[in-house]
Amino acid sequence: MSLPPLKNDRLIRALLRQPTDTTPVWIMRQAGRYLPEYRATREQAGSFLDLCQTPELACEVTLQPLRRFDLDAAILFSDILTIPDAMGLGLYFVEGEGPKFERPLRREADIERLGVPDPGVQLRYVTDAVSLVRQELDGRVPLIGFSGSPWTLATYMVEGGASKEYRFVKGMLYAEPEALHRLLDKLARSVIAYLNAQIEAGAQAIMVFDTWGGVLSPQAYRDFSLRYLQQIVAGLERKRDEVPVPVTLFTKGGMQWLEAIADTGCDAVGLDWTIDLDDAWQRVGTRVALQGNLDPCVLYAEPEAIRAAALDLINRFGNHPGHVFNLGHGIHQYVDPEHLGVLVDAVHEFGFEIRRSA
Amino acid sequence: MSLPPLKNDRLIRALLRQPTDTTPVWIMRQAGRYLPEYRATREQAGSFLDLCQTPELACEVTLQPLRRFDLDAAILFSDILTIPDAMGLGLYFVEGEGPKFERPLRREADIERLGVPDPGVQLRYVTDAVSLVRQELDGRVPLIGFSGSPWTLATYMVEGGASKEYRFVKGMLYAEPEALHRLLDKLARSVIAYLNAQIEAGAQAIMVFDTWGGVLSPQAYRDFSLRYLQQIVAGLERKRDEVPVPVTLFTKGGMQWLEAIADTGCDAVGLDWTIDLDDAWQRVGTRVALQGNLDPCVLYAEPEAIRAAALDLINRFGNHPGHVFNLGHGIHQYVDPEHLGVLVDAVHEFGFEIRRSA
Repeated sequence: MSLPPLKNDRLIRALLRQPTDTTPVWIMRQAGRYLPEYRATREQAGSFLDLCQTPELACEVTLQPLRRFDLDAAILFSDILTIPDAMGLGLYFVEGEGPKFERPLRREADIERLGVPDPGVQLRYVTDAVSLVRQELDGRVPLIGFSGSPWTLATYMVEGGASKEYRFVKGMLYAEPEALHRLLDKLARSVIAYLNAQIEAGAQAIMVFDTWGGVLSPQAYRDFSLRYLQQIVAGLERKRDEVPVPVTLFTKGGMQWLEAIADTGCDAVGLDWTIDLDDAWQRVGTRVALQGNLDPCVLYAEPEAIRAAALDLINRFGNHPGHVFNLGHGIHQYVDPEHLGVLVDAVHEFGFEIRRSA
Repeated sequence: MSLPPLKNDRLIRALLRQPTDTTPVWIMRQAGRYLPEYRATREQAGSFLDLCQTPELACEVTLQPLRRFDLDAAILFSDILTIPDAMGLGLYFVEGEGPKFERPLRREADIERLGVPDPGVQLRYVTDAVSLVRQELDGRVPLIGFSGSPWTLATYMVEGGASKEYRFVKGMLYAEPEALHRLLDKLARSVIAYLNAQIEAGAQAIMVFDTWGGVLSPQAYRDFSLRYLQQIVAGLERKRDEVPVPVTLFTKGGMQWLEAIADTGCDAVGLDWTIDLDDAWQRVGTRVALQGNLDPCVLYAEPEAIRAAALDLINRFGNHPGHVFNLGHGIHQYVDPEHLGVLVDAVHEFGFEIRRSA
């Protein structure tokens, strides 16, 4: 079945550092709890996992923010922990506590036992959702597919859930580094297969979320996170029918290592809000596109302050190609959706203006 | 009452970038839950707050790690939230959830109502503990006094406890910046009075913990955290009877802003483990001393790996004056105390060697 051609290609062009009419914008977690219609669908689904694993419902919530806001991309609604779940760790959610695994990895034997999941089998619900969203989008905007990074997935798998101190996974890093490398290599191969299956099903851009890379020392980051991000960049089928599929890497808390991230060969680097966008551009902006980087808490301010913050970011980037506007992390659940509308419109308005005045 | 003179002055000399016979070492949270004798005293005290507020018990736990390890400093055992408690917010602790306030600050009127506590009255239990520890130490090693930074205190006061998203305090930062500035100014003045009272009572070095400065954007860090750190550095009585009292600033997650921190006029900068010590030295090491910066999780490894990590850090700093060895954050409660002993001895051994071989 052929997929409809892309009408709004701002995101793809900006990720490839080609000129665009205005600055494209999408928002991490744009399909999420701050939207009443999301909460209603989630209610209908029963559990968060049911929502992720039912393609029709995942498709519905993926599209919801596009009905409200003039966004330049859709991002597949899914969880970052689908791969460990497919590996058999038993993902479950406790309200207010985040994700947990029934069978965390604590011994080398646990790691040896793991296989690389076949995305066409254990993760079929994801690729089915990708195909469905592509059909429903009808070419309006591109669809972004994603995965967690090997290191980030490993933190949850070894800790058994979210962590503050990373006691077990960093204990393994320092005490049994070879065991951790075996886990990370299996995860990198799983992520490559998973993301290539998403591309095959219709994902038009890819993002890898290295949410916890920033808790590592510089050396540990290079050895245990960046190295596997590079393996993924090299393993992705970044063209489909001669159309490029750009890949964006995002290490939250990793702004000290921007140059090294840009050197992986990725197309774009996601930025959190702890770096000035003009500094980031100076450091790597001629090699990669940059995505970000407004503090999500700016959305708690009044519309005029939100517009001013958007203008400041647009001016910091200046009239170069290669900026995708986003927050520096996911949108918070308590944000007033109207405030996001103000932001999205302001980005397009100021993005047009800076190009016209140049 | 005159206080005994200092026998081991390695810490003070290193903080002032003067030569020492070996590298001084102390450990953040060295008096803490990883020590069985600490847990016993805490049990005896009843609650954590009782432990902090009873000078004899606070003195006892301050001294406990010095009986086990060859540490070059004691740090007063206390909580970073003593000032907000003295301001009337009602500090309490829920087991496993960290600190909470009965009356968090949510409206401007809450902030207007706050006064600057008199350390000789509401915080007398702290200065009494300082005097007692100085007497008990008998000049063996210097005693470090400390406070939380204004921004870090404000996060707890506005959120009502620990936070992941800083919804309320960063909401205030972007929506009502002037209200937040009024709070931070009151806190800066309170911290100055509090730390000067600790110096008056006998603290021989001062550290300010800006634990949550790293969650800010660069501009917000300068305006809402660094500015008040600078006010504190300027307001401290950094000499007592002609003896210098060095001040160390530590913004966890703030390694991108090292130069700006060094420019406050502080004597030393604390480093977390996300920066290479040799890079930090290149950037600011000729202006300030550096304290840090081993990943606390290294202590989960075996003794040989701990020794290798200590040697690596000592070699990275090289044979310059001005390094105080520490972890990049507090020691974890699950660490085997014997592993800390291995680390402390390794620092002294390799610190001697690098000076002898130079």
